[in-house]
Amino acid sequence: MTGSLTIAGLGPGSDALVTPEVSAALAAATDILGYAPYVARVPPRAGLTLHPSDNREELQRAGEALRLAAEGRQVVIVSSGDPGVFAMASAVFEALELAPQYHDLPIRVLPGITAMLAAAARAGAPLGHDFCAINLSDNLKPWAVIEKRLRLAAEADFSIAMYNPRSASRPEGFGRALTVLKETGCGGRLVIFARAISAPDEKIVTTRLNDATPEMADMRTLVIVGNSQTRRVGRWVYAPRQVR
Amino acid sequence: MTGSLTIAGLGPGSDALVTPEVSAALAAATDILGYAPYVARVPPRAGLTLHPSDNREELQRAGEALRLAAEGRQVVIVSSGDPGVFAMASAVFEALELAPQYHDLPIRVLPGITAMLAAAARAGAPLGHDFCAINLSDNLKPWAVIEKRLRLAAEADFSIAMYNPRSASRPEGFGRALTVLKETGCGGRLVIFARAISAPDEKIVTTRLNDATPEMADMRTLVIVGNSQTRRVGRWVYAPRQVR
Repeated sequence: MTGSLTIAGLGPGSDALVTPEVSAALAAATDILGYAPYVARVPPRAGLTLHPSDNREELQRAGEALRLAAEGRQVVIVSSGDPGVFAMASAVFEALELAPQYHDLPIRVLPGITAMLAAAARAGAPLGHDFCAINLSDNLKPWAVIEKRLRLAAEADFSIAMYNPRSASRPEGFGRALTVLKETGCGGRLVIFARAISAPDEKIVTTRLNDATPEMADMRTLVIVGNSQTRRVGRWVYAPRQVR
Repeated sequence: MTGSLTIAGLGPGSDALVTPEVSAALAAATDILGYAPYVARVPPRAGLTLHPSDNREELQRAGEALRLAAEGRQVVIVSSGDPGVFAMASAVFEALELAPQYHDLPIRVLPGITAMLAAAARAGAPLGHDFCAINLSDNLKPWAVIEKRLRLAAEADFSIAMYNPRSASRPEGFGRALTVLKETGCGGRLVIFARAISAPDEKIVTTRLNDATPEMADMRTLVIVGNSQTRRVGRWVYAPRQVR
């Protein structure tokens, strides 16, 4: 039997946000690879081998997935959210570039509900106007690049979705990001801290950037900074469609 | 019975990309409102009233949905893709702001697979690094704002997802957008034209920006301009995770 590799997005946490396409791929899989907490979302069954791995091993995991698929296995790599947004899809194509012998393997990427969409939906419609998404992790890019992009995003008046704002190994960056945005005159903007959206311990906090502190974010938080027009109506936050 | 209003994202076209949460909302609805082609995706059944409307009537449609919900109906407004990304959710909150008597209505926004995620998944992983999303329609914002954002996005080296690049009533803007990006030195970047993704007539074309022409996009096309690092591997296009 011909093997295949599918890179599938599990969405932010709730099974109600997993697409039927992804559910079908999981049901047909012989092998599931991914960061352990995401693999743990797939129920064990006969004929399915689970391969949980650590957080920092994306390229190694991608190479292993290609190798298993080449052996004839039906392999699924699971990502949280969408696999193409700061997740496993890019790592797979990097691994593929290093391994031309796998170029003819059947590969599919199945999209998922990425964190910013789930967070925005819970908050209202803060991404209803032009926006950008920036990964605040400086594991794979210099901090200067992040800071430059934040300044330009503020100047463009984008709403800004910030992924991976803060972790135990990167406690400082998010505070610097808040400082940069205040320096560019965004202090009065609304900012949404969306933690563990669609999970049982989901929590949303909205404040003004001037009142935001680094401790309001952790590794399970997605942060959305509104644009200059973003406003509240009742308990909701939204970006108006019109800019004059 | 208490009425409710749900704003639901149908994804880009295929039923395999509709979340279970959205399917459940459609099954529980008494009234479906939306742009006619999206309402047409919901099968008729006894007890369900379909309210298709025209493209340009978002605010009026939102007001009607709030009124029906206040009467006790279970109302769902359907959007293509994600309702929070250049779609109906912002219009509903604008309508809510104009109608304080509806502030206590139960309202939910249900996320969906927005066009850029579906397009990116088909192409590979062009949104695997920092990116922005810009609506090229100048119906609700001046063209000068769009052009400024394109220039800043290029300077930030974001990948750029362009929604609504071109329509019969706006034939000129997309050509100007291509010119602006060429002027900023992006001519060598890869650009993906993703048309009708997940529909039977789906089509993807990848070229260099210097070779792109306005006629390559229409109102069903989502355009992704890569960043300076975006590359091909086999038939795939992806943004590497690392920037030095």
